[in-house]
Amino acid sequence: MQAQPEIPTGRIEAFSDGVIAILITIMVFDLKFTAPVNSGNVEIALGELLPKFISYAFSFLMLGIMWVNHHQLFHQIRHSERRLLWYNLFLLFWMSVVPFVTHFIGMNPLYWPASTAYGVVFSLCAFSFYLLRNFVVRQNLLHAHIEPGQHVFIRNKNLISVLIYLIAAVLAPISVYISFGLFAIVPALYFVPEKIVTKP
Amino acid sequence: MQAQPEIPTGRIEAFSDGVIAILITIMVFDLKFTAPVNSGNVEIALGELLPKFISYAFSFLMLGIMWVNHHQLFHQIRHSERRLLWYNLFLLFWMSVVPFVTHFIGMNPLYWPASTAYGVVFSLCAFSFYLLRNFVVRQNLLHAHIEPGQHVFIRNKNLISVLIYLIAAVLAPISVYISFGLFAIVPALYFVPEKIVTKP
Amino acid sequence: MQAQPEIPTGRIEAFSDGVIAILITIMVFDLKFTAPVNSGNVEIALGELLPKFISYAFSFLMLGIMWVNHHQLFHQIRHSERRLLWYNLFLLFWMSVVPFVTHFIGMNPLYWPASTAYGVVFSLCAFSFYLLRNFVVRQNLLHAHIEPGQHVFIRNKNLISVLIYLIAAVLAPISVYISFGLFAIVPALYFVPEKIVTKP
Amino acid sequence: MQAQPEIPTGRIEAFSDGVIAILITIMVFDLKFTAPVNSGNVEIALGELLPKFISYAFSFLMLGIMWVNHHQLFHQIRHSERRLLWYNLFLLFWMSVVPFVTHFIGMNPLYWPASTAYGVVFSLCAFSFYLLRNFVVRQNLLHAHIEPGQHVFIRNKNLISVLIYLIAAVLAPISVYISFGLFAIVPALYFVPEKIVTKP
Repeated sequence: MQAQPEIPTGRIEAFSDGVIAILITIMVFDLKFTAPVNSGNVEIALGELLPKFISYAFSFLMLGIMWVNHHQLFHQIRHSERRLLWYNLFLLFWMSVVPFVTHFIGMNPLYWPASTAYGVVFSLCAFSFYLLRNFVVRQNLLHAHIEPGQHVFIRNKNLISVLIYLIAAVLAPISVYISFGLFAIVPALYFVPEKIVTKP
Repeated sequence: MQAQPEIPTGRIEAFSDGVIAILITIMVFDLKFTAPVNSGNVEIALGELLPKFISYAFSFLMLGIMWVNHHQLFHQIRHSERRLLWYNLFLLFWMSVVPFVTHFIGMNPLYWPASTAYGVVFSLCAFSFYLLRNFVVRQNLLHAHIEPGQHVFIRNKNLISVLIYLIAAVLAPISVYISFGLFAIVPALYFVPEKIVTKP
Repeated sequence: MQAQPEIPTGRIEAFSDGVIAILITIMVFDLKFTAPVNSGNVEIALGELLPKFISYAFSFLMLGIMWVNHHQLFHQIRHSERRLLWYNLFLLFWMSVVPFVTHFIGMNPLYWPASTAYGVVFSLCAFSFYLLRNFVVRQNLLHAHIEPGQHVFIRNKNLISVLIYLIAAVLAPISVYISFGLFAIVPALYFVPEKIVTKP
Repeated sequence: MQAQPEIPTGRIEAFSDGVIAILITIMVFDLKFTAPVNSGNVEIALGELLPKFISYAFSFLMLGIMWVNHHQLFHQIRHSERRLLWYNLFLLFWMSVVPFVTHFIGMNPLYWPASTAYGVVFSLCAFSFYLLRNFVVRQNLLHAHIEPGQHVFIRNKNLISVLIYLIAAVLAPISVYISFGLFAIVPALYFVPEKIVTKP
């Protein structure tokens, strides 16, 4: 009776790519005029479309950032493990709720519960990413030549995002514009993924 | 005239990943407010959303479990075969009906036919998985170092799920809450996939 | 100045898998009750659902068969080529129209134009598959150990499907039941893909 | 402290394939009759369907061309890089807006703002492709045996598409038929991807 052979990460990456690719693209299906547009109703139609387009573009950017980071993290994982599948599925679950809150805030841009929901879901996405990375570091699943200290730093940066989104969610009843401002900070923090330092 | 060369399982896994990734994510498109929400209708809107969210989360979990088990099974299959494609497509077909019953139970949470339909479809999913694994074991498609006895055990566990879902379907007219309870047992049984024992 | 290096078929397969996986699964989204169901309207609701379910299951089967054959064909192709991409895209285009005719026939099961449309689209799918296979054989893109004569046989079988679907389309105005019978013949012909004979 | 190891392009291709496969296929979901069709309303129904079908087929062709070129470009890239991910995501974003403008022009075929929107989005797609290819050439990410001069030529051809689409967008208020004619020129230019010349 031997230990289970090491499982490569190929299929977990392929499945995650599939899920994220679907999430990032199906959101575009809410970008729709509900009726044929003509010179009489075009202004109303565009007025309804604009917040939907902005929330779509922003969610596309955020899911894109998560994909880039997911890509980078899994590229450095030596082998898979049962629990890694579950941490990854937990992250994918919260990412999968993004189209819903995007739709919600796109239809009700100035209604504070939409901003709160948006903030909470992205906070849970960031938190699941924290848990995933934390598990990878603690179980020592990284390739031997990767410096784990760097991942500890990124993991802690994830906690900052969790916090920013939570604050945005909490402050939404006061003013949704504060929330919008806070939402915009996180992509700025994440746009450039950290350089991964390899061991000397 | 020689025997057909052995077909690797790569593409069957990629296709299944694609199908399951789509199923697990498009369900989120039923999570929608049908009209702009405001302080006047928010309670009704949330009341309609909650059962949809719960059924979405539960189906996500169940499809996730099936993916983990599918992943593990195919990782141990040595090579593909024509009939394996059909057993796999049969499983994917019943998995593909999951969004429909999820939508049905999400819209009619306390209406017993919805619970019955939900139970029947998941029972058929579990049964197709039984057939697939049974075929793999009987055709001896596993890698040489895998102990087939372990798969026989898991295959029989699949039959238990088939039964639990069927009982849940049958008891739904008496009380949907009994069905809900039975639905919750199966993920508990499957959350941890069996350790696959390799030969000594 | 050298000849272009041979392009592997990996990505063309991955892309086709993605497209077919999406087509085969998104059709389930037409399986929907349009309103909450109760004891008063359940019979009408089920009466509307049944033809949708049957047309969904049948189209799932047909797309599944095409995927199995696509899988088998590309497994035997030595290397890709520019024009192969276009023949493949032409096939994928007609496959992508399948959800539309499935929806059409599911909503109007006894209205002959639906059966005609269904027959025409599947005829064009079979015809594109004929063109694709024909190109592969004529350009000699098969692995050296594959007997091309076998593919010529399968290619000609494709023409029979083209014809059966066309006849079904033409006879639909007389009786849609004749069309239904003819539709059912093709999967019977294709369920078992031909054994590919390798050279002695 | 060493330089970051070179990242292979496999997963960026898989993700892009997923996104493009979804975009190219979900557009078919707008091809729908909104109500059961009968002899009384079939002419109106077909009259509404025809422009949707044409815009679907045209967008399928354009996304197909982009996929073929994306395929060819990435096949020649030696290794990935952080910024390459972003250029690629920027391209995917504008491609992801294609279903929206396809839907818009399909519902309002002779309304000039639809043609303008269609032209602008495809112009931005072509422009993102220009940026992506430009980055690849300037960062010298091509395989050693590829002649970069050829890519400079294709990159400049991309700029011509950007221009043609922009002109089509600007001339739409005068006549949408001029725009339609200009839209048709680009696929003719791109149907055959340039032969990539390798170094002697």
